[in-house]
Amino acid sequence: MRKLSVFNSVSLDGYFSDADGEMGWAYAGGDDPEWQAFVAGNAEGGGALLLGRVTYDMMAAFWPTPQAHATMPAVAAGMNRMQKYVASRPLTEPGWQNTTVLAGDLVAAVAALKASDGPDIAILGSGQITAQLAAAGQIDIYQFVTCPVALGAGRTLFDGLQNPLSLRLVRSRAFRNGKVFSEYACG
Amino acid sequence: MRKLSVFNSVSLDGYFSDADGEMGWAYAGGDDPEWQAFVAGNAEGGGALLLGRVTYDMMAAFWPTPQAHATMPAVAAGMNRMQKYVASRPLTEPGWQNTTVLAGDLVAAVAALKASDGPDIAILGSGQITAQLAAAGQIDIYQFVTCPVALGAGRTLFDGLQNPLSLRLVRSRAFRNGKVFSEYACG
Repeated sequence: MRKLSVFNSVSLDGYFSDADGEMGWAYAGGDDPEWQAFVAGNAEGGGALLLGRVTYDMMAAFWPTPQAHATMPAVAAGMNRMQKYVASRPLTEPGWQNTTVLAGDLVAAVAALKASDGPDIAILGSGQITAQLAAAGQIDIYQFVTCPVALGAGRTLFDGLQNPLSLRLVRSRAFRNGKVFSEYACG
Repeated sequence: MRKLSVFNSVSLDGYFSDADGEMGWAYAGGDDPEWQAFVAGNAEGGGALLLGRVTYDMMAAFWPTPQAHATMPAVAAGMNRMQKYVASRPLTEPGWQNTTVLAGDLVAAVAALKASDGPDIAILGSGQITAQLAAAGQIDIYQFVTCPVALGAGRTLFDGLQNPLSLRLVRSRAFRNGKVFSEYACG
């Protein structure tokens, strides 16, 4: 069974993107060497990605470009190479290489995906699919990087959740740049 | 100068109270001995409290009652003895002992309070005054207990903040019950 995880930077008030849909605030503190080593270790995983339509469009517009290759060659190569799944009915011809569109009911499609062969799958950004899959108990691991900033408004990862979802803290680690990484398991 | 701090339990999605205004989810895990020792150490501080009207009414309806004395005698005695400040124009005759109403402009009233003699002041709950005082740079210390639960909806502590507020992480500590305590300083 492939494991499905969520990885997101969140503000102190729980938002993964601000009122304008921006995530630039999450990149502050990127020059902390301990943090860089931690992020590099995470990126080596070589799993697949599950993305909502908004996040997919944002990433597909950046990672295949010459700018991405010039500024972050290793990450860009990894992003382009990884298998991407995008939850989106209107999107029929995804332009980004190694992308599969998940048609039909998302929860059923993800359950089938988890039961198939392949590497573990991570959701990045994508608030709507996170809330939907969290409520269905499909997400095995939640990884949050709490950034030391309050935004006042934005989008939360669990918008639309009908019942409280209790998780189990697996580990937590604070970094010199003020970020706190916490990992939770479902059940 | 008296220091002003905020202490709140928050959900993984950043809410200090759920969609019904309830905070019961924050009390899960109370039987962890390490957590109990930590909470008891915090309660010994002997400072003053600053409360918004909603939080004040909730606390004033409970702590002076015989039930509070019977179930949590030490905390109830402390709560009743402490100096309370309540930010509320319509409230003119506070029923709870040792309460002062802050009339007029909240930011100016709190600035005067911080410049006066007395113990440090903690805000509990009270989302509206937290956002207002945070934006005015009046809050020196933020203490959050992140509980391992997602709520889906509720009230955030920084609702109405016009500009992002960057804080400095002072310390972070994870507990066996899944709570993560993080303390931040302003500037």
